[in-house]
Amino acid sequence: MSDVLMKPVAYVHSCYREKFGIPRQPGLVTEARGEVRLLPEFSQPDIVRGLASFSHIWLVFQFHATANVSWKPTVRPPRLGGNQRLGVFATRSMFRPNPLGLSVVRLEAIQHTVSGIVLFVSGLDLLDGTPVLDIKPYLPYVDHVQTASGGFAPESPEQLRSVEFSVLAEKQCILKSARWSVDVRLLLIQILQQDPRPAYRQAQEDDHQYGMRLYDFDVRWVCQADTVMVLELVNQGD
Amino acid sequence: MSDVLMKPVAYVHSCYREKFGIPRQPGLVTEARGEVRLLPEFSQPDIVRGLASFSHIWLVFQFHATANVSWKPTVRPPRLGGNQRLGVFATRSMFRPNPLGLSVVRLEAIQHTVSGIVLFVSGLDLLDGTPVLDIKPYLPYVDHVQTASGGFAPESPEQLRSVEFSVLAEKQCILKSARWSVDVRLLLIQILQQDPRPAYRQAQEDDHQYGMRLYDFDVRWVCQADTVMVLELVNQGD
Repeated sequence: MSDVLMKPVAYVHSCYREKFGIPRQPGLVTEARGEVRLLPEFSQPDIVRGLASFSHIWLVFQFHATANVSWKPTVRPPRLGGNQRLGVFATRSMFRPNPLGLSVVRLEAIQHTVSGIVLFVSGLDLLDGTPVLDIKPYLPYVDHVQTASGGFAPESPEQLRSVEFSVLAEKQCILKSARWSVDVRLLLIQILQQDPRPAYRQAQEDDHQYGMRLYDFDVRWVCQADTVMVLELVNQGD
Repeated sequence: MSDVLMKPVAYVHSCYREKFGIPRQPGLVTEARGEVRLLPEFSQPDIVRGLASFSHIWLVFQFHATANVSWKPTVRPPRLGGNQRLGVFATRSMFRPNPLGLSVVRLEAIQHTVSGIVLFVSGLDLLDGTPVLDIKPYLPYVDHVQTASGGFAPESPEQLRSVEFSVLAEKQCILKSARWSVDVRLLLIQILQQDPRPAYRQAQEDDHQYGMRLYDFDVRWVCQADTVMVLELVNQGD
């Protein structure tokens, strides 16, 4: 029963600057781009030799934002509407006995920079600043289990919302896209069509205005019937 | 750059009693059965509520047998014949900066016993005594990446050997199958058809007799041309 000491090998730099709104699983928001920056100690060019030939990689990471929150034997997965309790080992909840997360992302490019090795990834679902404990290639012939089935989440998520933009927000998207070299409008559609509101809010009339921090801005939006309306992108500094 | 302290939540009880011969990935040897025994602290019935509805689970584990061996930036994967070097993050090698392993196994049953919760699994590739740090459901809609490709191991392993048994070994398989409630003959076929010998041995005439510890016996075998001949199963006590 000996404890195991792990140390970060890299840190994630991501568009997600707060937990609210982060998709519940990777791959749902393909436009969510980020960087996995290896620490100097691990930034030896040889350490990633051959990695570029893989389309996807596993990130084993620490749920750092909630690492000090105590875990409970059961959790309420958002996908079940927040009412049903499941055992923590039957979910991918971040509140676990060991705060270990597992996420598969698309590997877009590898760069060797003066400050270290950077892996450019997409389909990311990790908070900015997440410590990465391990990087492994996704091996289709073992990780892609043909016969796997089951559980509370057999299908892709629930019905998607349509997403619309105010004239102001449309303009701001263009500016932010140039600033961050990413299609911010598409990113917002992919995130907001999943409807990140808590389940109890989705079930009722809701005139609340929501905010979500991405990059250096706060996106403000409301949800009316089945449509998400993006109102504006408010600068927060970076 | 803060260290992360993890503690085992369970230990694996497996047919594999030494590293030699363990398949290089899970799922290749479906008859490899084992138990994941949750520690008393985590053996609350609620902790696995809903887990039985999943066909497969992830085990995040510690490579305990090699945890104190220092890692190198490159490794030589057996699948490449042992000559070519790849970056450690481009492989699933056990010699890693953090000794973290990731393995998907089939969940056969869950039992609540007086000494704790036991998950019965198959397709296991873990050494007996492996500490498990986390258990997660395999979610087909995220973990089964349709578009994933690449790397040095795109296909299932190389050509399989045929496996034959001496008359003595045939009889011993029947006895051991009864003792361990598993089809030992099938298990040996599945393991040995992968040819666990080091690559340099496979490339030449080889009259060496090999041994491999499984359960309470040592299986003795030789490889002639493309055929593995199982000679006998020698008791080792348990």
